[in-house]
Amino acid sequence: MSPRSSTTTPGRQLDHPAPADIRLEAVLHACADPMRLRILQALASDPATSCGKIGLVCSKSTASHHFRVLREAGVITQRYQGTAKVNELRRDDLDTIFPGLLDTLLASAAAEAERA
Amino acid sequence: MSPRSSTTTPGRQLDHPAPADIRLEAVLHACADPMRLRILQALASDPATSCGKIGLVCSKSTASHHFRVLREAGVITQRYQGTAKVNELRRDDLDTIFPGLLDTLLASAAAEAERA
Repeated sequence: MSPRSSTTTPGRQLDHPAPADIRLEAVLHACADPMRLRILQALASDPATSCGKIGLVCSKSTASHHFRVLREAGVITQRYQGTAKVNELRRDDLDTIFPGLLDTLLASAAAEAERA
Repeated sequence: MSPRSSTTTPGRQLDHPAPADIRLEAVLHACADPMRLRILQALASDPATSCGKIGLVCSKSTASHHFRVLREAGVITQRYQGTAKVNELRRDDLDTIFPGLLDTLLASAAAEAERA
């Protein structure tokens, strides 16, 4: 009997980098996109939000792509809750590895939004 | 007589975005590269440095590309001094538009270097 055949459903686990594998370049690349910055801002103001609740103006597959980029860079976690994916900022990890970076990115995104 | 045929040499002027045209996404994209982060760190510790003095381990054309990406994103200025290009961080502009961003990026790059 496979150790994976427990109560969790194989294939429903999403990969997340370990904190030691989170790279600054990947974090910055993940945040270098207006839609992904909006996701960050939404998750900062409303933690543990499902993808659908954020209300991005794009197709579902485009939205999924943006969430995946953020997850694979170590910026957010995603976990299944029923059929929905619930997203959260990896604030503790990011604040430990790159102190101040997440808050500065959020403040810069807010400044950018005010200039538009 | 063209107004450009003065003491400046046409074609030797390098394009820089106006402060109003500096976009957060472009700044983050420009910084989402280990070599460009090294350039930022070098310019932070030794302002007004020529490309050659930074000593990047890459071809001259690759180095030129990285400096150009940083210039076009509004992160650095480049001006000719004889045959050399002199580079400077756009600290005043960046600190005005995105307060704290440049210093946080430099601190994060230093943190990243320490983990390597």
